[in-house]
Amino acid sequence: MKKKLSVLAFTLAIAGAAAPAFAQQQYAKAEDAVHYRRGAFTLLGYHFGSLGAMVQGKVPFNSAQAAIDGDVIAIASKLPFHAFVEGSDKGQTGAKPEIWKEQAKFTDLRDKMQAEVAKVSAAAKSGNLDNLKAVFGAAGQSCKNCHDNYRRRL
Amino acid sequence: MKKKLSVLAFTLAIAGAAAPAFAQQQYAKAEDAVHYRRGAFTLLGYHFGSLGAMVQGKVPFNSAQAAIDGDVIAIASKLPFHAFVEGSDKGQTGAKPEIWKEQAKFTDLRDKMQAEVAKVSAAAKSGNLDNLKAVFGAAGQSCKNCHDNYRRRL
Repeated sequence: MKKKLSVLAFTLAIAGAAAPAFAQQQYAKAEDAVHYRRGAFTLLGYHFGSLGAMVQGKVPFNSAQAAIDGDVIAIASKLPFHAFVEGSDKGQTGAKPEIWKEQAKFTDLRDKMQAEVAKVSAAAKSGNLDNLKAVFGAAGQSCKNCHDNYRRRL
Repeated sequence: MKKKLSVLAFTLAIAGAAAPAFAQQQYAKAEDAVHYRRGAFTLLGYHFGSLGAMVQGKVPFNSAQAAIDGDVIAIASKLPFHAFVEGSDKGQTGAKPEIWKEQAKFTDLRDKMQAEVAKVSAAAKSGNLDNLKAVFGAAGQSCKNCHDNYRRRL
């Protein structure tokens, strides 16, 4: 029993946030929320970029890699938005304060991006590069729309 | 056409790594690899911790959240290991240099962790807290085995 508790304590420690309210995606500190969403955006950007390199012909189309990329972007596009919590506009973040002042617009751009990324995910998993080319540009634009308004480079 | 290319250029820029060889999970700079694997471990830790809080009774069991957690940990447990590339033992990383000297042991611990996390993922998605409790401790131990050997706190 002692060993089990110690593993659980370890688990909470590595998660970097003492519960309560994990399940509601809350954070012990605002910087934990920043760290979390940066993690999600890093994976989203990397795997979207991986597909972009195939679309652009910089690397050969690889259906196995595309399927992984498709899985990752589908999930990663949904995760970070719970983490724009109050007070997390400070520190190591590229999020502009306008996000918290223009929630309706930000949410609208989020929804559009998620819809476009879902199309790219499906196309990436279809194993057909032409499918991917057909939907990639609009998804890239949907990322850019938000970055242009709400992201500054660190 | 010009617009399309510009979105593609943007895509590669946000991915933070100029191809070639995205699909082979290579990185323009070693610090990109560090950033990528930290992103994956952050999501893994957070969502594993979310399940841990339910197992421990710190938050009520929430089957919808558990299903999301299960999806994320299944993917996130597989992603970071491609990113322990040569030269990425420096900078903002908690990875100990022993990783690159003890590849067989590191790989073995990785495989065991991934197998245990797959069990937790399935249990999390079953909607049954008892299933989750039955497999959670061993998975936590499998994380800890690697951290004890190969991770230092930043």
